[in-house]
Amino acid sequence: LDKLITITIDAMGGDYGIDTTVPASLMSLKKHQNLCLILVGDEGLIRKKVEQSKIKYVSSRLKIHHTTQIVGMDESPSLALRQKKDSSMRVAINLVKSKEAQACVSAGNTGALMATSKYVLKTLPEIERPAIVFAMPSMNPETGIVRPVYMLDLGANVNCSSEQLFQFGVMGSVLVSCLTGKERPKVALLNIGEEEMKGLDSIKQAAKILKSFEPVDYVGYIEGNDIFASKADVIVCDGFIGNIALKAIEGSVKFITTAMKETFDSNIFSKAAKLIAAPVLLKLKNKLDVKRYNGASLIGLRGIVIKSHGGVDALSFAVAIDEAVQEVSLDIPTKIQEKVEKFLTNQDVGV
Amino acid sequence: LDKLITITIDAMGGDYGIDTTVPASLMSLKKHQNLCLILVGDEGLIRKKVEQSKIKYVSSRLKIHHTTQIVGMDESPSLALRQKKDSSMRVAINLVKSKEAQACVSAGNTGALMATSKYVLKTLPEIERPAIVFAMPSMNPETGIVRPVYMLDLGANVNCSSEQLFQFGVMGSVLVSCLTGKERPKVALLNIGEEEMKGLDSIKQAAKILKSFEPVDYVGYIEGNDIFASKADVIVCDGFIGNIALKAIEGSVKFITTAMKETFDSNIFSKAAKLIAAPVLLKLKNKLDVKRYNGASLIGLRGIVIKSHGGVDALSFAVAIDEAVQEVSLDIPTKIQEKVEKFLTNQDVGV
Repeated sequence: LDKLITITIDAMGGDYGIDTTVPASLMSLKKHQNLCLILVGDEGLIRKKVEQSKIKYVSSRLKIHHTTQIVGMDESPSLALRQKKDSSMRVAINLVKSKEAQACVSAGNTGALMATSKYVLKTLPEIERPAIVFAMPSMNPETGIVRPVYMLDLGANVNCSSEQLFQFGVMGSVLVSCLTGKERPKVALLNIGEEEMKGLDSIKQAAKILKSFEPVDYVGYIEGNDIFASKADVIVCDGFIGNIALKAIEGSVKFITTAMKETFDSNIFSKAAKLIAAPVLLKLKNKLDVKRYNGASLIGLRGIVIKSHGGVDALSFAVAIDEAVQEVSLDIPTKIQEKVEKFLTNQDVGV
Repeated sequence: LDKLITITIDAMGGDYGIDTTVPASLMSLKKHQNLCLILVGDEGLIRKKVEQSKIKYVSSRLKIHHTTQIVGMDESPSLALRQKKDSSMRVAINLVKSKEAQACVSAGNTGALMATSKYVLKTLPEIERPAIVFAMPSMNPETGIVRPVYMLDLGANVNCSSEQLFQFGVMGSVLVSCLTGKERPKVALLNIGEEEMKGLDSIKQAAKILKSFEPVDYVGYIEGNDIFASKADVIVCDGFIGNIALKAIEGSVKFITTAMKETFDSNIFSKAAKLIAAPVLLKLKNKLDVKRYNGASLIGLRGIVIKSHGGVDALSFAVAIDEAVQEVSLDIPTKIQEKVEKFLTNQDVGV
């Protein structure tokens, strides 16, 4: 029998709060027989939502932890940290710190989640800053095989030093190795093609360190258009760049799917074509659906925190819970800590 | 009758050189009755290619200017500048400087094109650095109307100061006003959503300057996912960020179209569906085709230089020539210079 896993859910977080988090939690309880969830938030509202649901669940594996505050989606991280000590987000993280749970999942404000997680859980030894890592689909242009590529940092840190980029590379390598079983995942740095450019000294310097660092399989620079080309398993970048790239990708996917929908709906002939092409379009949708790629890890912390996209439905939020279950099962932070300690304290990483 | 326009073509530039540039040039001569082209490059090769072509053209409007060198696609810009003084790229720009032509079009190495253009043509007064501006499709989510949004800088400059970002905003505003007739184009700064972040002082400061600068209609920050949402006419960013975003967009478009193709080709039923959906898919392709959006302007120079994507076909390269024809007809650099001088010298732009 699998060991019991306890995860806290920031039930009030995200664009839709309990409308998403409660049904997703019940689905996850049904799916994972060894899962216990602590739903953190307004007890009355959560209980009502649970009772309304038609999903059967084992009540002994569901707990509600009452809190009185909510961190707004646009709230300043530092204000949330100072003034929202009884928020669903803060308490969900506190319960990980106090070992009452092994992971926390939140669809709330990214900045506040990062700031609170860092403050409450602290970073691992040797790691200056945690990073947000997210899996995106990529396709080998020769084989057509789609598999995830892990990108970090996606917004936790702007203006990263070369040393921090290097640490992201190490953490990403260890994470992907744990998740996929791949012994030496390929690690690349995101850069632009231009040879001679000013101002990217941090990236150039990080490349030097990674190149001379044997435990990581550093494969060089990749450009934005190769994010999807399966050229690397881990793509490392500054959080500002990563966030811009991620959102530009989100935007282009949305643009294309909207254009596709509008084109198919534009007249009676195209509508007929849509009916006939429907099974193919559905297959394509499943292949591309960004919602299936939900759940970004905040890595580098002494605990597991998973960030769900804010605007997703229950099915997608459940994917983020799955991610938390997997990371707990694999004991990711301990593994990162072990390897990072082994890598970074026993070796001379010269800058 | 329209005034004659003379444009130089860097015939050897791009991934396919004369295979693309020569047929594109002949198509453009056929299309624009007032156009004269000077094809710069290896005379023998160009002449042979011209003779092989079946496109009818008026030979009096086509000239060949012989050069002996080629700038490689991965060549260092500074080496190209120093050692390739008889390259097709350099001479094509020289001919703009000497007023033998009014614009130059090249599909060559972006860094070398920018460095050479800046060195030969010089920047406009009051403009510290030229920028690469490119039109991308965007769609109003309410009306479904697709129209271009102009983004700059897309790779000419990394680590821009707030003052340089401000100048990009001014140049972008004037350019779009000339191209579209819109009196006060909406100008936005590309940023990430996070309120409290370190290190983006240049963007914050540029926002302050733009906000207090009456001639530009500054509408605030936009995030990467809103590039396509028609929220602004001009999007301003640092060249590093812009290049990463542009390439990430290119990559996602390619990923989706490849996935679409593979899904439709996966079995006999989906192939049948593809046949039926073909007219709709073609319409969609035309709507999205990035090749139709070819021809980035290098603005801020004392002359017109248009950069074509390196890997495009003749039809797309001809679109870049169209862009050059339009900018010559509208006399863009003079208009930018006039407005920039009026804006920046008569007003007190306090930082």
